[in-house]
Amino acid sequence: MVVKSELKLIKSLQQKKYRNEHGLFVIEGKKSVEELVGSNFKCYGIFATAPNELNLGDSRVNLISAKELAQISSLKNPNGCLGVFHIPKKEMDILSDWIMVLDGVQDPGNLGTIIRLCDWFGVTDIVCSLDTVDCYNSKVLQATMGSIARVNVHYVDLDSFLRSTDLPVYGTFMDGSNINTYSLPKKGIMIMGNEGKGISSRVTELCTDKIAIPQFGNKTTESLNVASATAILLHEIRK
Amino acid sequence: MVVKSELKLIKSLQQKKYRNEHGLFVIEGKKSVEELVGSNFKCYGIFATAPNELNLGDSRVNLISAKELAQISSLKNPNGCLGVFHIPKKEMDILSDWIMVLDGVQDPGNLGTIIRLCDWFGVTDIVCSLDTVDCYNSKVLQATMGSIARVNVHYVDLDSFLRSTDLPVYGTFMDGSNINTYSLPKKGIMIMGNEGKGISSRVTELCTDKIAIPQFGNKTTESLNVASATAILLHEIRK
Repeated sequence: MVVKSELKLIKSLQQKKYRNEHGLFVIEGKKSVEELVGSNFKCYGIFATAPNELNLGDSRVNLISAKELAQISSLKNPNGCLGVFHIPKKEMDILSDWIMVLDGVQDPGNLGTIIRLCDWFGVTDIVCSLDTVDCYNSKVLQATMGSIARVNVHYVDLDSFLRSTDLPVYGTFMDGSNINTYSLPKKGIMIMGNEGKGISSRVTELCTDKIAIPQFGNKTTESLNVASATAILLHEIRK
Repeated sequence: MVVKSELKLIKSLQQKKYRNEHGLFVIEGKKSVEELVGSNFKCYGIFATAPNELNLGDSRVNLISAKELAQISSLKNPNGCLGVFHIPKKEMDILSDWIMVLDGVQDPGNLGTIIRLCDWFGVTDIVCSLDTVDCYNSKVLQATMGSIARVNVHYVDLDSFLRSTDLPVYGTFMDGSNINTYSLPKKGIMIMGNEGKGISSRVTELCTDKIAIPQFGNKTTESLNVASATAILLHEIRK
């Protein structure tokens, strides 16, 4: 059994405001919880309907009833396990050769997919504008499939960040130059914009190169989804 | 006002069984409805809370109340407009140079994203195994952003389809050969597998080439999302 005040605290973490207030976030699902327990994230508590089914070494797991779990889960069909972790206090200590920069990405599924992609392609740092969706949002975490354990997501004022770098800054635009004609350097910054509006005008001014992924259809498709575009660009970066 | 029996019919189309029985499907949202009205799809009826806001030329639009729309919509927040169209009777008349084949893709968002990607890259035919998610599922259509109007999706027995072709058949596997070392031909078939299980063993036997997208991370990421992998492969096909 879990005490009421604890259930209330965990449920409140569905809102960004309370995540920031308590410095905690929730991740759901066996695989994701196991990945985070084995990472640098500091664990606050693990709650499961069947603790023995988890592969967590020495970590203590709190037994929770299915009814209690349903109360605090953000999922329609909770899947038996939920972990609460501390939001790390991150230094802006960037180790990647390439840095992915997101300017106002709003859709949680897109951010989650981009985090998972960066993990696959070994880009360990994502720098987000302050209006990008929160990476500790439950839908983002769900889409990362545990990759949040291996990718650092920073939220900063992009303007100052980009002014302080010596790296080449690639921005993706509908009318940019064909990426296939570029030979990308070993280190750099790649900026992806908002789903509807693209890269903001202030950030556009700070791009050293404007690139695009060429379209081969009948020119009526509006745009590539930002996560699909990110997949292609990360692949190009690593070729 | 829309008669009750009509509302009931439209609502029933949320289920594949009734879509097939009536040969009809539903698409929601102004942009998607407008794209489908301007395409080869035959329209059964359009329903909108504010018909004057639609850009549909001579098409007749039925006024529907917000309450009625909420009853028949598959969206939590219906967005004012819904179109019912006839499911086309498709000949297996393939015009693309490259054909995308899906073997058991289950997630509606993934199929929708793949349809949108094929549209962007000018691959007009997708051939799906019979157990791939239905392309007239509302979540698939939502994710296509109207691209369903320009991409033909066929459901067939993959085994017979692949046995009848002379084209090279590329399958994507975790342990395939690095795609970056390949020079892809002008025409071919690219197979993507199920989200969890990959390509089925029967279909694997029919692949002429096994390829993979190389990983650059720390080798703990489980896999690329199938839609992200499709984005990269379509980009490679068109380079």
